[in-house]
Amino acid sequence: MSQTGKLVGIGTGPGDPELLTLKAVRALESADVVAHFAKRGNPSNARRIVAAHLRPDVVELPLLYPVTTEIARQHEDYRSAIGSFYEASAAAVAAHLDQGRTVAVLSEGDPLFYGSYMHLHVRLACSYPTEVIPGVTAMSGCWSQAGVPIVQGDDVMAVLPGTLEESALAAHLAGSDAAVIMKVGRNLAKVRRALASAAKLDRAIYVERGTMANGHVVRLADKVDDDAPYFALVLVPGWAGLESAIPSHSAGLAAE
Amino acid sequence: MSQTGKLVGIGTGPGDPELLTLKAVRALESADVVAHFAKRGNPSNARRIVAAHLRPDVVELPLLYPVTTEIARQHEDYRSAIGSFYEASAAAVAAHLDQGRTVAVLSEGDPLFYGSYMHLHVRLACSYPTEVIPGVTAMSGCWSQAGVPIVQGDDVMAVLPGTLEESALAAHLAGSDAAVIMKVGRNLAKVRRALASAAKLDRAIYVERGTMANGHVVRLADKVDDDAPYFALVLVPGWAGLESAIPSHSAGLAAE
Repeated sequence: MSQTGKLVGIGTGPGDPELLTLKAVRALESADVVAHFAKRGNPSNARRIVAAHLRPDVVELPLLYPVTTEIARQHEDYRSAIGSFYEASAAAVAAHLDQGRTVAVLSEGDPLFYGSYMHLHVRLACSYPTEVIPGVTAMSGCWSQAGVPIVQGDDVMAVLPGTLEESALAAHLAGSDAAVIMKVGRNLAKVRRALASAAKLDRAIYVERGTMANGHVVRLADKVDDDAPYFALVLVPGWAGLESAIPSHSAGLAAE
Repeated sequence: MSQTGKLVGIGTGPGDPELLTLKAVRALESADVVAHFAKRGNPSNARRIVAAHLRPDVVELPLLYPVTTEIARQHEDYRSAIGSFYEASAAAVAAHLDQGRTVAVLSEGDPLFYGSYMHLHVRLACSYPTEVIPGVTAMSGCWSQAGVPIVQGDDVMAVLPGTLEESALAAHLAGSDAAVIMKVGRNLAKVRRALASAAKLDRAIYVERGTMANGHVVRLADKVDDDAPYFALVLVPGWAGLESAIPSHSAGLAAE
């Protein structure tokens, strides 16, 4: 009986291919199969990040979401379709593992921090040898590009999805020193109101495509519209002791 | 007049030298000066992580804390000593920058996430060209080693210093789906009580020296004592939909 292969969740970092770790590069170079999630018809962003490190003979396993934003997330049809998709994806990965192949699953940012890889991990890590290679998160990429110290000392930081209700957002913002608001997209007007009611709009910084060549950083108060892509972030730096130094000392900050 | 050098804050990741990014390695190889913070008499952990990538002819600039835990942090003497230390450190780095030398400042984890580098950044980034290279955080290293999915979907995550008051800790824990408690050290008994009052002790996972060869992961409820080093972390995974899969599906989890 042949030995089963190993499952490796690889964090590809926030977008700049230079932000791959040495460990991720070595794991990619030794993987038999590289799996990546993508929307049907769209290239995988994680695959783009690692493209230079894929062996010419590597087997690629694209895992294509059957639905993304066409159906509301709360809808039963969405839950059913996405659940079946993760089951089928896990089975496709398991088939390779059963043949003794090492399967690397790409995950933008960090695999266990809001990553699709988690859906495979919980289904397979109990049955196959598994390794998770952490990656630089999108939020680290964004505050580094903005040059904004996010937390220091005894600061409390909240990571908040922009999909929360306005009152919940405002309460979390008021109760934390620093915050990162993810999934800003269509929620920017609401995020702005929640920041204003927590008296933190003045400190908020908007980052689009952090660590990409066309990245964009601006004080949210200076952004004139509420248009934002899904993966835009809003940062609220903590560290009140140096409040006056933020954001004027921030290297990456540009006026719009 | 010669051009000034560039300040580069480099995240070295959580401890495993393989978790350095390609960008960090290239920046180290091209730096004229490498600065690192350490306690007097102790080797810098960040320097240990990058040791294989230091050029033999690189100039090293150790920045040695005058005080660490000998004086209480709230004490005026501590604030005064540490403030003077950061001023002197910034001046020492600036002297190299003024000579046109590129100065890389090492930071364990991510430079702008609770890093000492931030104290140089706010003093120098306004006057010198500055780049921040994000790194894998200690918390990502820990949840990856533990194999614990930390947040998914619309989860709210709180990053909490273990130094908070017990009631504040409990309130933040009760109000978030997931949490990372930093600086556990002497605070473990209090952290345990706060988790219990937020009804989350059963889900909490204790991680010591994440990503190090001698790392240790255990359910906090199974840890028999309250001894912990300063840099131990406690993880409270969110993602309630798969609660039953945590931590039994977690690859890195060992019974104590």
